[in-house]
This record gives sequence, structure tokens and C-alpha cells, in this order.
Amino acid sequence: MAFGIVIGPRVRKSPFFEATVAAGVSHFSIYNHMYMPVSYGDPAAEYERLVAGVALWDVAAERQVEVQGPDAGALARYLTPRNLESCRLGQGKYVPICDHDGILINDPVLLKLDEDRYWFSIADSDLLLWVKAIAAERGFEVAVREPDASPLAVQGPKAEEVVASLLGDWVRELKYFWFRETELDGIPLLVARSGWSKQGGFELYLLDATRGGELWTRVEAAGRPFGIGPGGPNYVERVESALLSYGADNEPDCDPFEMGLGRFVDLERPDAFVGKQRLIERKAAGPRRRLVGVFIDGPPLASNQYPWPATVEGRHAGTIRVVAHSARLGRNIGLALLLSAHAEPGTRVAIHGEAGRLDGTVTRLPFEPSEGASVAPLTMPGAAAAG
Amino acid sequence: MAFGIVIGPRVRKSPFFEATVAAGVSHFSIYNHMYMPVSYGDPAAEYERLVAGVALWDVAAERQVEVQGPDAGALARYLTPRNLESCRLGQGKYVPICDHDGILINDPVLLKLDEDRYWFSIADSDLLLWVKAIAAERGFEVAVREPDASPLAVQGPKAEEVVASLLGDWVRELKYFWFRETELDGIPLLVARSGWSKQGGFELYLLDATRGGELWTRVEAAGRPFGIGPGGPNYVERVESALLSYGADNEPDCDPFEMGLGRFVDLERPDAFVGKQRLIERKAAGPRRRLVGVFIDGPPLASNQYPWPATVEGRHAGTIRVVAHSARLGRNIGLALLLSAHAEPGTRVAIHGEAGRLDGTVTRLPFEPSEGASVAPLTMPGAAAAG
Repeated sequence: MAFGIVIGPRVRKSPFFEATVAAGVSHFSIYNHMYMPVSYGDPAAEYERLVAGVALWDVAAERQVEVQGPDAGALARYLTPRNLESCRLGQGKYVPICDHDGILINDPVLLKLDEDRYWFSIADSDLLLWVKAIAAERGFEVAVREPDASPLAVQGPKAEEVVASLLGDWVRELKYFWFRETELDGIPLLVARSGWSKQGGFELYLLDATRGGELWTRVEAAGRPFGIGPGGPNYVERVESALLSYGADNEPDCDPFEMGLGRFVDLERPDAFVGKQRLIERKAAGPRRRLVGVFIDGPPLASNQYPWPATVEGRHAGTIRVVAHSARLGRNIGLALLLSAHAEPGTRVAIHGEAGRLDGTVTRLPFEPSEGASVAPLTMPGAAAAG
Repeated sequence: MAFGIVIGPRVRKSPFFEATVAAGVSHFSIYNHMYMPVSYGDPAAEYERLVAGVALWDVAAERQVEVQGPDAGALARYLTPRNLESCRLGQGKYVPICDHDGILINDPVLLKLDEDRYWFSIADSDLLLWVKAIAAERGFEVAVREPDASPLAVQGPKAEEVVASLLGDWVRELKYFWFRETELDGIPLLVARSGWSKQGGFELYLLDATRGGELWTRVEAAGRPFGIGPGGPNYVERVESALLSYGADNEPDCDPFEMGLGRFVDLERPDAFVGKQRLIERKAAGPRRRLVGVFIDGPPLASNQYPWPATVEGRHAGTIRVVAHSARLGRNIGLALLLSAHAEPGTRVAIHGEAGRLDGTVTRLPFEPSEGASVAPLTMPGAAAAG
């Protein structure tokens, strides 16, 4: 199926929009009410650049929610079950956000810009509305707004060379999820070692939306010796890396334990946070479902259009959320949300795909290469466990 | 510019998705995290069906937020500045929703299903999160959830014939924005006289997502004698009708007075509601900007890609949000958000479009036909003022 997307004034364009058009973007999605480039027409080359070279992505649709004021820290702590005690100035933390029922509603990265200023770099749901409502109804003394900040991602094993040649060798010292404000010949930037891949890299948060074309051109020029090219959040790589995609991998009623995010939930914290009591109950009851990997038998699969039902011995066992053929793993893989009884590694599941029945085997995440797979490492050292 | 849209499992598909594909959908947008068909490849025919015949639209992306429980009515009243005293069972009301600063964050239609059950049929922002946060933090005794309800719109002057032939003559008695639950050979429906056009019609809320294909087929068959065909929310018609498009016509900091929605804000209400104090202050200060019409000189214009800056005597005067060529009005029209000093009818504005400078004249909304325009009425009797 091939369909067009309407480009009009309702959906916001990124500061890099014109640059991505000039670079040959072919396919968009819409994310956080913004156009987000997802392909430039050559998925194989885009994948290869990401895992073996360096890629340039317009991810301005990872919009920021800023909380600023005397209660900013207290509000941040109230919003997430994660313990933020160890979060330092200049550090980012992956912070699942739950509603009062303990359901995951976003999984942003929190950036601590100052003692009284934090950003949430968000997944695809309107966290701005959530934070505004909580802050106002609880009387926190904060301003909640969207700052002028638009991430441009430089991802892949050669990303560090590119960003160092552009900004200096100091970027090599940045630890994963740490960031620093700087400028590039007057273009204000926040530079973070982060990005929505497991191939390593940086996100350059442009802090002046009028200068998107300039920044794109500068990064593109700095990356040319390293073979940089455009791309977008990469479907196959993110499935291989089991990087959570909010809205794709979860159902609307999933809690963080089900999604494998239990290590970010600190129920021993003495202070209150949204959903605490329900999360305690949910943890005690044990997860009803679990996000796991599946290896799927048969010839290479294209990506799925819908979540695919999975059964065990003819009975409902859950859904396969996303499938991909991984050349690096030498097999078809998927992420599956399965009832806990059927989520043990080795369980055989029947999968009811758009083109008929398939069979698969449950496996642990992250995926591990099979014997005959190509030898490229699945993740950059350090990237997997951090954050 | 022509770009593709990626169809994958992250973005939700409507229950009518497969039917729209079979009917030849060519272009989608994404609205409330769902694919929404916006064209079937022949904009002129789609417009003509809407204004002179009957059109079938998949608008399941107008997602519902249900509040149910003893405090549902109290919560609904707290959420909107509109006075709901006169809202009866079976009636819908257009209810602007503001944040605590008095900024418009959605403009849904409220449906009163029962004394303790309401739906908000929403525009493109996550009102579900907003309502959940307010309800939980204030301790309202309600459940907040998304029900299984997917609107399919039948729009145009012949829509009543189609829906009456399908469901019976009783639908002719439904007043604007009123609704009733019914079924069609076992397919559960809620039928409302409503829709996002000013051409009259109905929205059939499918209450069982597994039966989308069936319902589409039944409506299509009933409409065949009347020349029904597929379409989607129509850009040109909605600009002609000055029907507000949340996210397109407003800036992120607009209040309802600026957007021409002051008549839905009741500051005399004795009870509390979100943003009341700030709305009182905003009303007293007068709107900083106003949404107005503009007639734009010159040959027929295509739609804009970005909001276009407007100036008066070389100074910033606001932005033209959307432009369209209206054959019915015989001229180019636009909706503009202008500083109040420049928003008086007759004001000449310079418009800085993507292809150069244009000139326009501010006019009142709704638009009125010029002398030489075609004679088709701009709106169905009754539709304009209702709601």
C-alpha cells in the first residue's frame, strides 16, 4: 500500500523541514502533531549508515516540555516513579510517566538544566497537557511551557567523529545522556549524548528555530568526510535493539512492569508520586502481560500493518506488536506483548499475520545473535545499559 | 511537494481503514494518533459531493473521551467555561476546553449520554490525558476512558435522505447536535445530527469496532441512489464555512475570545471551572488578537504550507492561518489571526506568502458571497448557528 500525506498548515513543520525536503525526504509520519521524516527512499542505505556509518535525523518532533520555577524539582519528582535523587545538573534520565492508575502514558528523557528548570523530551502523547493539569491542580509554583528547542540527531558509530569535528573534542567526554549548552558560530545549541538508536550518537538541540537550515548544512558538511546521509528513527534497528516505541509496543492500558521498565520504578521512595499506590498493587500482583522478543520462522518478513494476534494451543496469548527481518541477526524478529503465562523463553506461539499463519519462539530481550548471523555488534558499548 | 506516509503498527487504524483503502483513499493525515483519510485523489469531485450531494467520511480519529460515574456531570461542568445547565439527555454541545491560564486546548462536542455519562468528541490533542489528570487530582468519582466508538460521517444536502433510508424517517426529526442510540441489523450505533462541515448531515458512531467494514458497506449501498462517494474533512469547505480547525487556526497561546468563541464562555456562572479567573481577566483586557476572514486579491491560490505573516504599513499584524480559493465565493479567502488593532473589516493587509507578496482585505466571519459569485448557499439552514 502506498499513500500520500497531505502537507498543510495544520501540522507543525520542524525547523529542519525545508532542509529535509532538499535532502530528498520521501516519507513522513506525524509525531506529536509535527511532520517527522522517516525515509529518504532507500531503507537499506539508511540502515547501513546508522549501523556502520553516521546518519542525520530530524527529530524535532521529540518536543520538549519545560517546567521552570521554585517547585520544578518537586513537580518532576511527583511526575515519575523513577528516583531522581542521583540526577545531576547536565544529566538526562529516562523517566517513565504513569497516570494515577499506574498506566504508562509517555516515556520521555528528563534533562536537568538547572535546579529550577527541567525538560521532558517526549514520546508521542501530549505530555504538556498532563504536566500543566497536574501542576495547576496541585498548586506547584512553576511555569509549564514548550521551549524553543528542536533536536537534530547524529547517530551511528561515526557520529562522535562528526560532532567532535564540528564542536570540538570535549564532546568525546560527554557521558551517555549527559548534555551541555554551547554554540556553533552563534547558533545556540544543547548537545546531548543520546538518540533513539543503540548505535551511539548525539542529539543537537537547536535553541533558535529560525536557524534550522543553517545547522543542518553545518552538520551535513562536517559529516561529509564520514559519509553522513539523511535518515530517520529506524524501524529495523529499533526492533533489533528492542528500543521501546510508545504507542506501538504497548496497549493503552499497559503498566511499566509489563513493558519491562520495572527497574525505573522505585516503590521504596518515601515521597508521593503519581500512581504510587496502584504501582505497588500492580507490582504485588505481578505483570499480567510481558513485552518479550520472538523469533519468527520462515522467509524474510516485511513489517506488519497491524498488531498480530498470537495463540498458544489455540488460545489467545497476546499480540505481536512489531515484526522485522534482521539481517544482522539472520532471522525474523518481533516484539510481543504476551500474557505472562506464555511469555517464558522457549514458548512456541502461533502468529496470525496479515498473510496467514506463522510460528515463532519467545526469547529474552535484548535479542542475541544466532549462530549463522553476521558479526556486526547489535549495540555500541555502553549505550545499552545507560540512561 | 508529494510525499508518502508510512503505514505501520504505531499509528492506530480506524475500523473503517480497510474500507477506505478499498474505496481508493489516496492521502492520509494523522489525527489523534490515528490515520485519517483526507483525499481519494479527486478534490473537485469530493468538494462537489459535499456541497451538492452526499459524502462518506471516516472520522474515527475524532476520538471519544468518556467520563462516567457519580461526579461525571460535575467534572464536565468543571472542564468547560460553557454553561451546561440547558444540556439535556441526548443532546450535544460544542464545548471549548481551556487550561488554567485560559488558553484553548481543545474544542470538542460534548454528548450527554446519561446523567452520569458524557462523551467528549475531540479535536487533535490528547484530551484524555487532561481529563484523567484533572479528575484524579481533584478527586472526582468518575472513570475516564476511551469507549469503543468510531464516528462515520455522512455529510451534504442529501445526507438526510441516505440516513433516513438506512435507519428510518425518525432521523429527520433529530435536531442539530442531538443524538440517539440505535442499531442497524445488530450493528450498535449512536446517530447524531452533526459533522465537521456546514452542509448538514449525520455522524454514525459505530459502537463495535469489529464491524466497521459492514457499516461502511451498508451506508455506501444506501447512498448509491443519491450518488454517495468517499471523502474526508474538506479543506476548502471548512475555510469557506469558517469552521474552526484546532491546531491550524490558533496559536498555542490563544484564548477562546481571540478565536471568536466568546459566546461559549459564561463568566457569570457561580460555579468554578478551569481557567475562570484568567478568562475573566482576559475578557476585561480584551482580545490581543482576533480570528477574522480575509479576501485575498489575485488569481486562484493553492492552499498554504505554512501560516503566512501579515503586515500593515510594514509592521507585524499577525498571520494568515489558512488560504483557499472558493469557487462559490468567487475569490480567494483566508482565515487570519490578526492583532486586534488590525482586525477591523476593511483593513488592507500585506501578506507574505510562500510565492511572494499578496494583498488582502479583512472581512467579517462568516464570509458573505461577493456579487459575481455562484449562487450555491454557503451553509445549510440551521447548521450555522446551532450547537
